[in-house]
Amino acid sequence: MKNKEQESCQTQRINSFTKIEQMPQNREKFRLGGDEIRHAEAMIDVIFPSVAFPSNRIFKTMGESAIREMVWHHHELLLKTKVGKLFPANEEAFKMVVDKTADFFVEALGGDDVFTTLHGEPKLRVRHFKIPIDENDREIWLSVYKKTLKEINFPKQHLEEFWNWIEPLSIRMINRRTNMQNIKRHYWNEVKSSF
Amino acid sequence: MKNKEQESCQTQRINSFTKIEQMPQNREKFRLGGDEIRHAEAMIDVIFPSVAFPSNRIFKTMGESAIREMVWHHHELLLKTKVGKLFPANEEAFKMVVDKTADFFVEALGGDDVFTTLHGEPKLRVRHFKIPIDENDREIWLSVYKKTLKEINFPKQHLEEFWNWIEPLSIRMINRRTNMQNIKRHYWNEVKSSF
Repeated sequence: MKNKEQESCQTQRINSFTKIEQMPQNREKFRLGGDEIRHAEAMIDVIFPSVAFPSNRIFKTMGESAIREMVWHHHELLLKTKVGKLFPANEEAFKMVVDKTADFFVEALGGDDVFTTLHGEPKLRVRHFKIPIDENDREIWLSVYKKTLKEINFPKQHLEEFWNWIEPLSIRMINRRTNMQNIKRHYWNEVKSSF
Repeated sequence: MKNKEQESCQTQRINSFTKIEQMPQNREKFRLGGDEIRHAEAMIDVIFPSVAFPSNRIFKTMGESAIREMVWHHHELLLKTKVGKLFPANEEAFKMVVDKTADFFVEALGGDDVFTTLHGEPKLRVRHFKIPIDENDREIWLSVYKKTLKEINFPKQHLEEFWNWIEPLSIRMINRRTNMQNIKRHYWNEVKSSF
């Protein structure tokens, strides 16, 4: 019988012997085709954590135009990242997307119902299905928001309430998985020192 | 104050009034920016059901070459569907992919450990991450398998065991979500009459 190295050279389909070296100790975990049917346990993929939607306190402090400026600031920074490629290249179409997002933030933070009147129920996850958004895109979106909040001098007393909303909310936009890890959390307690 | 229709005509961003008409009765569900923080409950996205890995009975009946032919048959049918676009266009690269899949099926159904020896642990979900696979791709993959099993006259006495493996297993390859529905199940009891 041929040894493994010869086999692999013949087929040219093996990249590394590392895994084969590591196999014996894990063998039981994935042994296939034995005498009996074997059951692999059910697994949960993503859990979307609960989301704390903010009160109208932020709107009362900031007002509509500062909220719209924040959303524009965030999107202008996003355009400099790889997430920028997920937005329409056409300037007019891009403006419509950002204005729509601004409508949402105005309403969600306590302003008039400008979003639901124009666009209907938020259903943010559904609205984002047409665009593939992976875990890393969400990391970028969120870290750019952190930068935005600093650059626009977001009212300090409302930072926690705002962050506790966008951090879990952003997880719900992920619709493309590229790894087996749990979605990374960025809890307020861990990020507050950076503000 | 302008009415809703005027607003929508000015902005040209509304597609339908249906949702707005339907809004009042659902209003509480998504009302944003009230006096207090509101919590949206945690949600599970996909549950991967348990998978019944087959015994070596199928290999004992079919043997290695019939299993490899089945995998090739399946892939030749897949090439005629939109799932075919997920495979390498290059013929040699395509052959390598199919042979690798055949290695897996041979081992999983009870043959020699040709897959794990050459490629390491199966980790099928991980191996598929680089290719976006949505719910509909999985529907196609599975329905083409049904067609394959009929066309190759898969041994009738083992159909249930085989189906109970590939049906839940195929769910674990989904890494791109495009809708909010639960992943569709195709239980043996519902499909057996089509064989």
